[in-house]
Amino acid sequence: MTMYGRYTQELGVYAREEAARIREDGRHRSPPLKLLEYEKGRCFSLCGVCAVHCQRFLMSRVGEDWIFLILLGLVMALVSFVMDFCIALLLQAQKWMSGGLDSNVILQYLAWVTYPVVLISFSAGFTHIVAPQAAGSGIPEMKTILRGVVLKEYLTLKTFVAKVVGLTCALGSGLPLGKEGPFVHIASLCAALLCKFMSFFGGIYENESRNTEMLAAACAVGVGCCFAAPIGGVLFSIEVTSTFFAVRNYWRGFFAATFSAFIFRVLAVWNRDEETITALFKTRFRLDFPFDLQELPAFAVIGIASGFGGALFVYLNRLIVQFMRKQKTINKFLMKKRLLYPALVTLLISTLSFPPGFGQFMAGQLTQKETLVSFFDNRTWTKQGMTEDFNYDSHSAAWKHPQANVFVILVIFIVMKFWMSALATTLPVPCGAFMPVFVIGAAFGRLVGESMAAWFPEGINTDGIIYPIVPGGYAVVGAAALSGAVTHTVSTAVIVFELTGQISHILPIMIAVILANAVAQSLQPSIYDSIIRIKKLPYLPELGWGHHEKYNIRVEDIMVRDVRYITLNSTYRDLHEILLIGNLKTVALVESAESMILLGSIERAQLQALLTQHLSRERRLEFIRDRADAERKRVSVVSTPSSEEGGQKVNHEISTEESSFTPARPISPKPLKPALKRTSTAEKNIEIPTSNITHTHTFTYLWKHFKIEEWEEQQLDEQVNFNSCKIDPAPFQLVERTSLHKTHTIFSLLGLDHAYVTSIGRLIGVVSLRELRKAIEGSMTVKGVKVRPPLASFRDSGTSGTSSESEATELHKLWDRHTSISIPREHQPNTSDSDEKSHLFFFFRIMTFLLAN
Amino acid sequence: MTMYGRYTQELGVYAREEAARIREDGRHRSPPLKLLEYEKGRCFSLCGVCAVHCQRFLMSRVGEDWIFLILLGLVMALVSFVMDFCIALLLQAQKWMSGGLDSNVILQYLAWVTYPVVLISFSAGFTHIVAPQAAGSGIPEMKTILRGVVLKEYLTLKTFVAKVVGLTCALGSGLPLGKEGPFVHIASLCAALLCKFMSFFGGIYENESRNTEMLAAACAVGVGCCFAAPIGGVLFSIEVTSTFFAVRNYWRGFFAATFSAFIFRVLAVWNRDEETITALFKTRFRLDFPFDLQELPAFAVIGIASGFGGALFVYLNRLIVQFMRKQKTINKFLMKKRLLYPALVTLLISTLSFPPGFGQFMAGQLTQKETLVSFFDNRTWTKQGMTEDFNYDSHSAAWKHPQANVFVILVIFIVMKFWMSALATTLPVPCGAFMPVFVIGAAFGRLVGESMAAWFPEGINTDGIIYPIVPGGYAVVGAAALSGAVTHTVSTAVIVFELTGQISHILPIMIAVILANAVAQSLQPSIYDSIIRIKKLPYLPELGWGHHEKYNIRVEDIMVRDVRYITLNSTYRDLHEILLIGNLKTVALVESAESMILLGSIERAQLQALLTQHLSRERRLEFIRDRADAERKRVSVVSTPSSEEGGQKVNHEISTEESSFTPARPISPKPLKPALKRTSTAEKNIEIPTSNITHTHTFTYLWKHFKIEEWEEQQLDEQVNFNSCKIDPAPFQLVERTSLHKTHTIFSLLGLDHAYVTSIGRLIGVVSLRELRKAIEGSMTVKGVKVRPPLASFRDSGTSGTSSESEATELHKLWDRHTSISIPREHQPNTSDSDEKSHLFFFFRIMTFLLAN
Repeated sequence: MTMYGRYTQELGVYAREEAARIREDGRHRSPPLKLLEYEKGRCFSLCGVCAVHCQRFLMSRVGEDWIFLILLGLVMALVSFVMDFCIALLLQAQKWMSGGLDSNVILQYLAWVTYPVVLISFSAGFTHIVAPQAAGSGIPEMKTILRGVVLKEYLTLKTFVAKVVGLTCALGSGLPLGKEGPFVHIASLCAALLCKFMSFFGGIYENESRNTEMLAAACAVGVGCCFAAPIGGVLFSIEVTSTFFAVRNYWRGFFAATFSAFIFRVLAVWNRDEETITALFKTRFRLDFPFDLQELPAFAVIGIASGFGGALFVYLNRLIVQFMRKQKTINKFLMKKRLLYPALVTLLISTLSFPPGFGQFMAGQLTQKETLVSFFDNRTWTKQGMTEDFNYDSHSAAWKHPQANVFVILVIFIVMKFWMSALATTLPVPCGAFMPVFVIGAAFGRLVGESMAAWFPEGINTDGIIYPIVPGGYAVVGAAALSGAVTHTVSTAVIVFELTGQISHILPIMIAVILANAVAQSLQPSIYDSIIRIKKLPYLPELGWGHHEKYNIRVEDIMVRDVRYITLNSTYRDLHEILLIGNLKTVALVESAESMILLGSIERAQLQALLTQHLSRERRLEFIRDRADAERKRVSVVSTPSSEEGGQKVNHEISTEESSFTPARPISPKPLKPALKRTSTAEKNIEIPTSNITHTHTFTYLWKHFKIEEWEEQQLDEQVNFNSCKIDPAPFQLVERTSLHKTHTIFSLLGLDHAYVTSIGRLIGVVSLRELRKAIEGSMTVKGVKVRPPLASFRDSGTSGTSSESEATELHKLWDRHTSISIPREHQPNTSDSDEKSHLFFFFRIMTFLLAN
Repeated sequence: MTMYGRYTQELGVYAREEAARIREDGRHRSPPLKLLEYEKGRCFSLCGVCAVHCQRFLMSRVGEDWIFLILLGLVMALVSFVMDFCIALLLQAQKWMSGGLDSNVILQYLAWVTYPVVLISFSAGFTHIVAPQAAGSGIPEMKTILRGVVLKEYLTLKTFVAKVVGLTCALGSGLPLGKEGPFVHIASLCAALLCKFMSFFGGIYENESRNTEMLAAACAVGVGCCFAAPIGGVLFSIEVTSTFFAVRNYWRGFFAATFSAFIFRVLAVWNRDEETITALFKTRFRLDFPFDLQELPAFAVIGIASGFGGALFVYLNRLIVQFMRKQKTINKFLMKKRLLYPALVTLLISTLSFPPGFGQFMAGQLTQKETLVSFFDNRTWTKQGMTEDFNYDSHSAAWKHPQANVFVILVIFIVMKFWMSALATTLPVPCGAFMPVFVIGAAFGRLVGESMAAWFPEGINTDGIIYPIVPGGYAVVGAAALSGAVTHTVSTAVIVFELTGQISHILPIMIAVILANAVAQSLQPSIYDSIIRIKKLPYLPELGWGHHEKYNIRVEDIMVRDVRYITLNSTYRDLHEILLIGNLKTVALVESAESMILLGSIERAQLQALLTQHLSRERRLEFIRDRADAERKRVSVVSTPSSEEGGQKVNHEISTEESSFTPARPISPKPLKPALKRTSTAEKNIEIPTSNITHTHTFTYLWKHFKIEEWEEQQLDEQVNFNSCKIDPAPFQLVERTSLHKTHTIFSLLGLDHAYVTSIGRLIGVVSLRELRKAIEGSMTVKGVKVRPPLASFRDSGTSGTSSESEATELHKLWDRHTSISIPREHQPNTSDSDEKSHLFFFFRIMTFLLAN
């Protein structure tokens, strides 16, 4: 999560521009790409042929998808294993250092504190230098990418390196950070890089939608190999990243995640860490009587409390970010010294968790993993409130304190870890929030479980047989509930089953998770949606639950009525003006301004190409040659002997103009600023030749320049010839009366960016993501963009009879159109306005030109 | 699965007509409905107001969805529990009967055989009489309904009753039948009925899309409360019924299924069946070392073999159905005696499983549940191939036979149950195939497990410690793999975890299930898709894996170019002809036959209403009155004294005509046959008055009748006034170059029935589900509808340069249109042809009229 640079208003805009640029690049690059590939083919000819043959054989036998998914699973399992290994080493080093210095507390403290500060600073610095996009969780970005938005820098090799190295260091520091979110990102990076690698062999990897499917599978792999939880991974990734899920991609995720989890655990067996393949945090609860029916209220309480806790965590996290951003002085200071904030935070957290210091009251010496193992332990830590007489094992000993009660320690642990985690996840290093929250949830569950065990020391009686209460089960329930509440997912339940290797507590866990979700979802967005809002990523928010208004808001209430369009009769001038106006991605093409029948949409780049082509160097030269020919004829008629000289002179003129005449009215992909820049370079080009020539030459040149401008003006007034232009003949259309609910569904289903609103073929408006987002947020927070709320609420009580009437009235428009009543549009004044502007611009250019001479 | 009547070509057509009828009914009924509600309101005024207030309070507090889902879960849990209880009673009765008669084998046999025959016959008969739709699994129909097709009779109270009673009897008979599929259907029925019930209180339950969401949740509840497996239920229902899944509905399924499973298990606790809430088929495998890494190949073998077995099962099932249908003599005989086929099948199956007879070699005395419990048992049945020295418990004793080996018995069991299950699931009773397949899979797994245990009696060595092999684990893997292969789902793995309450075998199960799916999916469709094909339900098949052709087939290759359309200038005669032609649901409205600009689409019913209204009784009377007025004026001018009489005469004529003049050219919802019928009744109406009147009257009448016909003809030639007609102004549009893959995605995403193909606003074709289905099946089976396969394959090698060129050429059409070149259409000859027909028809009517007098 980058604190400074990225957390700005402009990221959305930036992303959108980037997306547009990529698309244009792709288009412009396509012909040279072919050439390039051909050359590549010549270089690697032998190797390439071999590879292609091998690959074709394999593909035909096994199918490309399978190979891809196996490779992805394998790579991710290796990455996960190696990273875990390194993290374990780093954590061990810290323990060893502070353990070796236990003679001197100050030295020990320095060692304990310096180590994480150095690691975190390195992680933040490395991430910042190599790829600032690597900071943070990555799940919000993946969600946005899977929504169809292209975030260019998020799927590069640089980002991969930064994320892997940064994450290893960050987790090695012992701060309460998680690896789940980053792993989703790493897996997606892996998939994207593999796709690139495999498209080198050709095949279907250049297909856009195929790549998206693979990215979705990669998200599942990320979670799967992080927790060795294939099913939970698939479900979690679906819940977290998708709005509509294509069931036909389901098997991809399952296959890759299972394979990855399998390899991940097999590596552990080969490394002699484990005897066989088992769960990561194996529990040993009794199977025959996992819990009593009467314990269910306690589980429900855990669920509800976790719901509130989860919402609070999200709120706290956002509050910290917003506070840091608002405080101008702090912000300025931190912007200068980028590494200071992470270092300070790390210092604070590690000081507080220093084991001989305050850390003794919150089990500071345990790593996240050890803490979880101790929480999931079968045995009760307390019997009738006395902590003395129970048999501590190595990890559980951390919870024993001579002065303090187990309950007090647990409460301190929960409170301290809560704000620490919320704070730590705002650091600009690769880190996730899932695991810290999971641990806090487990601690809370354990607290409730220990309380229950203290309350019913003999267990809750059922028919004579005594089954003591298992606080470990409560810890499992709490972990699932709190992580579910923070991420707004139900599948944390499944992850927990796979993590612990036991499913006996399925009903309590499901009940707690669902209750936690219900509470949290009604209070706050999920942590990922919260980050999306903070980072202003271009994402469509979800519709809330049970908000009836969304059925009553219609497209006509939210659409933009002033649509930019071009007609079949448009002149190039109109095109030019449309391009100057703003940041439209596509422009609507209508039959005529009177009929307004929507014929299709044309991309901005296409229009630019049209305009550039029409005013191209070639056509200019042609015009000049034609004029020169005419001149020559005139000259030859007037003075036949000097025809040779005159011809030479004209030729000279032509060559001068050829060298100087880059488009006088430059049409570039970026219309405003760069256009001005290029103009100045163009004028420089003009300057250089003219300064060498005599004054008379300059004047004739100027005269010709005016001629060219005249020609240009004349060209601009011509009708556009759309023949060489790619038109999308079926842009998505909505109707005025389409409900907000349906619009949202269609936008999310098809990943639309905008849709035209038509009424019987006539273009009457346009709805883009922005309007939709505003409307949704408006419908939830009362204030908003309800342009016609009284009508909308009136419609609510309207019966089917009246609605059909109102739909019938639309036909009048049809008849109006048919009887050819022209509709006055505000386009005309607009045109004249910008005409004035362009005249001014023209005048300005001539002035600068004269002054330069 | 109805064997006879329903398995016909026409079901698809039938369903479509039904769908159309429902929609029309809904439209026609809407005004009276309001009246009805108002009266209802008066009747239950006090009670209603109270209920509404209560309900509003609750809704505002808890949300309508929650209440609905809780109710649904509760009802389904009760249904499931009661049904299980009844089934257990029925099965116990059979055992008790045959057990009590063990002195006489023949009597015992008779009792053993008669009992299931009676139950199955009753079930088949009851289902047939009450609701034939209740037969079979129900999942294929639910899949179709969730796809957006309205199958009217499948969601009624009658069907609910038939399904519940029929299923209880069928399962009580002891045949290898399952309850999962029917439970999905029952839950959906429950949800539909609850929706109806709750829409009585008002609220959002009238919303179409909301109902679909609720049905999706209901499917999850069905599986969830059948196996007490909420997570597996949700996933299974998603995999089986959805193509694209809206993640925002996820929680609904989870919530309802969890609640339902909870209540279902709590009922068992209250009934003292269980001590606390646990899994249905609880296993007790060891946790610390569930399986050795070296056993994985065996698990993989189970997976692959299950894949082949699953495909074989689907094939066998389809083969039996098709065989029964093809054999005309058998078919005719069975059609007469509907109950004979079920009775014969039951007789055969129960004879073979008679415990003292052949049943002793296949554990015939065990019920499905007992069989499963014995398969999932921890202990090995065999030690070094000897079956003597192991300690049998009650169920496992069935697998001991003095003459035969355990392996032999298991093989016989698998083979016999395999064809028995495939046969039994074709019976016309409510039944599913999941459980029988699950049992067979478990048996196969057990067989492999026992073999492994015999092969490695000491377990596979790992570092000195001996862990014996657990054949029960193999049984679990086999069960998941085979049921996964038959249904093409991965979530059977999750169901198995929840059923057994253990997740320790997660990796073997996932590997086996994925392998089984990979094999089965490449060989056969899933059992549900197979039934959809057999029943010819209107469902879009899935795209296969890795078929590249689907990216190269374009809409233009598969679309129908001869689209029926009406224009803004169409006359009522055109309308009439379009309506006569066929079974179009909607008709395209274009601007004119020359421009072909698509303006929208109009539903058939709307056009019918337009036509009926234009030739309505009121307008006829008006015309006659106008004419009478004109006549009267003429009469009054000619002979003033007899004006009174003339006026009376005219009045009499009018009244005659009023009584007789139902529309002369009746326009009914069913255009062809019923139209003829009504015509004859109309002529009878004409006959009765005329026979009482004098001949001169008849002739004047006839003259007037001709006048009316003339008027009618004149009316038909008028231009249609679309003012009172509901037009869908934005029907879904595709482009010629849209790929099959994208088209399929869009059709499945939006649940489309047809889409128009346009080229820059011009209508050039239409694609309906049928074409798409043909194209997909064609692209898979080589032969097919590839209208332009050479081009399609040519396009494959086409580069981006050529494609943009071809896209640019489309513009010529635009210009053509703009310069108003009319396109010759084959519509003209068509019109004249049907004109001739209508003339003939008219002549025929006059002749019959004259002859009748």
